[in-house]
Amino acid sequence: MTEYKLALVGFGGVNRALAQLIAERNDRWKTELGFTLKIVGVTDLFLGSVMGREGLDAALLAKLPTTKGAFAQWPGGNAEALNEAVIKESGADIIAEATFTNPVDGEPATSFCRWALEGGKHVVTTNKGPIALHGAELKALARRNNVAFEYEGSVMSGTPVIRVAKQSLAGSAMTGFEGILNGTSNFVLTCMENGLGFAEAVGKAQALGYAEADPTADVEGHDVRLKVVILANELLDAKLKVSDVSCKGISSIDLGDIEKARQDGARWKLIGAASRHANGSISASVEPRLLSHDHPLAGVSGATNAVSFTSELLGAVTVSGPGAGRTETAFALLSDIIAIHQSAARDQE
Amino acid sequence: MTEYKLALVGFGGVNRALAQLIAERNDRWKTELGFTLKIVGVTDLFLGSVMGREGLDAALLAKLPTTKGAFAQWPGGNAEALNEAVIKESGADIIAEATFTNPVDGEPATSFCRWALEGGKHVVTTNKGPIALHGAELKALARRNNVAFEYEGSVMSGTPVIRVAKQSLAGSAMTGFEGILNGTSNFVLTCMENGLGFAEAVGKAQALGYAEADPTADVEGHDVRLKVVILANELLDAKLKVSDVSCKGISSIDLGDIEKARQDGARWKLIGAASRHANGSISASVEPRLLSHDHPLAGVSGATNAVSFTSELLGAVTVSGPGAGRTETAFALLSDIIAIHQSAARDQE
Repeated sequence: MTEYKLALVGFGGVNRALAQLIAERNDRWKTELGFTLKIVGVTDLFLGSVMGREGLDAALLAKLPTTKGAFAQWPGGNAEALNEAVIKESGADIIAEATFTNPVDGEPATSFCRWALEGGKHVVTTNKGPIALHGAELKALARRNNVAFEYEGSVMSGTPVIRVAKQSLAGSAMTGFEGILNGTSNFVLTCMENGLGFAEAVGKAQALGYAEADPTADVEGHDVRLKVVILANELLDAKLKVSDVSCKGISSIDLGDIEKARQDGARWKLIGAASRHANGSISASVEPRLLSHDHPLAGVSGATNAVSFTSELLGAVTVSGPGAGRTETAFALLSDIIAIHQSAARDQE
Repeated sequence: MTEYKLALVGFGGVNRALAQLIAERNDRWKTELGFTLKIVGVTDLFLGSVMGREGLDAALLAKLPTTKGAFAQWPGGNAEALNEAVIKESGADIIAEATFTNPVDGEPATSFCRWALEGGKHVVTTNKGPIALHGAELKALARRNNVAFEYEGSVMSGTPVIRVAKQSLAGSAMTGFEGILNGTSNFVLTCMENGLGFAEAVGKAQALGYAEADPTADVEGHDVRLKVVILANELLDAKLKVSDVSCKGISSIDLGDIEKARQDGARWKLIGAASRHANGSISASVEPRLLSHDHPLAGVSGATNAVSFTSELLGAVTVSGPGAGRTETAFALLSDIIAIHQSAARDQE
């Protein structure tokens, strides 16, 4: 039986949900997946950090109070986030990185990933920053150190997108994709179709916990732009920087536009898209698009996300599912670990 | 460079499309996929058969006249379908089986699969019969002979469904699925929403080549029932026989039902579904269901297919795409070969 030693970097909702899953399901995974997970370190800028080579109690971790420096109350714990020590010295095989996305330079998450990969540890992450901004460098670093760098959760949380496209659609000759990649903006547009004004709809999204206090990144398309960069570079072998992707959000859409679309049998959606042209160049954009009702993404409402891949051999294949959620995103980390395990198991056959 | 030797069993639209893809794309696959394909045998009950260990010209094969016994005109060819010889003696590594689905006993395709697997050859197939009726036996036979038995194309043609669920959704604790798994019946329902009566809609589907001269298997749910058996046994570890799945088609739905649904903000869809109950038992059915407009399958119109997987960790994840088509189904065979190649490549690392 394989046991992977895991260090959790960032202990907000996602890694806490992962700890909860480990507490509830480790036994079941032994049979179903062929491995178990042991948490040997946790670090969080707000909560502090703890290490424990013999394994930390996942159920207790999941219940840790969300107070500043809470790990100081844990035996052997520390009010400070000893990030470097937890990543480098906890004895972890795999680092689960789930800190906040920094769209400017990807820090500090990118450094966390570098430390782990340089130290010969696999990295699984849900963070868009390191991949969108430093993906090529980190992938090369992982290859040089013969470890995995997996980030299924960086796009559409646990809904499988990157792995579906790279594995199940290999050979289909993919030419592009279009996606509804931000749940908040899609929820706002759905509310507007039900008669709420833009500001009211954003307020409702905030009240329901979908939108941040500052909703700019969601409604102006900045979040989607990072995801477009990740998908285009991964699936179309593009070499896009964030600034290569044109970006327009939904804040200029008003109820008149929504009603006009309805009369025309269409709907406004915030679409992140990229396509490969005949000359091999790639163009990518984020913008509101008017979709007719028979478009595969037109029926994707509320906080659901979806991406439609276009290929020479299949036409459009669409995957839709949750685009956020703590447990859903924790599943993305689990699915990355499963991929690491399957690859390792095959190497040993 | 790996070269797989391929024998094509059944040379209707699907394997002909595969030959065409090989003719057009073998060079490209060398770089992109790490292998090439060489056709060493073809057999078809109507066209006859041919073998050629040095490789048959794929482009010429794709253009073979569709006249009875056409292979008699091919150098070394035969007007008779020497199925057993082509499967056992052509030197093939992989048998691509794409004959007709026999819903009663799965023959002759099941025998073709047995011959191949017993002879240590991988099998890729688009045929529902062998898997739905003899899946457990054939899978065990493949394991004993250390070869692969792959059948992604048996459900939703090239749209990845089985592999997505087994690989990308592993660990999600799947509890069930609902699918629109027959393009003809979905097309008929869509036509009825546009005002055509049932008989007229079936006629239109026939005129467009979607429906067979005898549309019974499509509109009465028999085709969907086979797919439900395949998916339930594969994804929910059920041990269903075809007769375990209740089956009701769409022929009893009239325009009044369609209109009433519209007034209620809902749509009729022919749904194939299975779910695991708390006591571990599995129930499965094919029946028309009234879906509200926010159901993930409600927006799937025309000949598109879709399946929505429900799991404990992700809720609903839906995959939609083509459910038929020659090239699309040939891609399913290619994707099975890619899976075989990836598995073999890892074994050799």
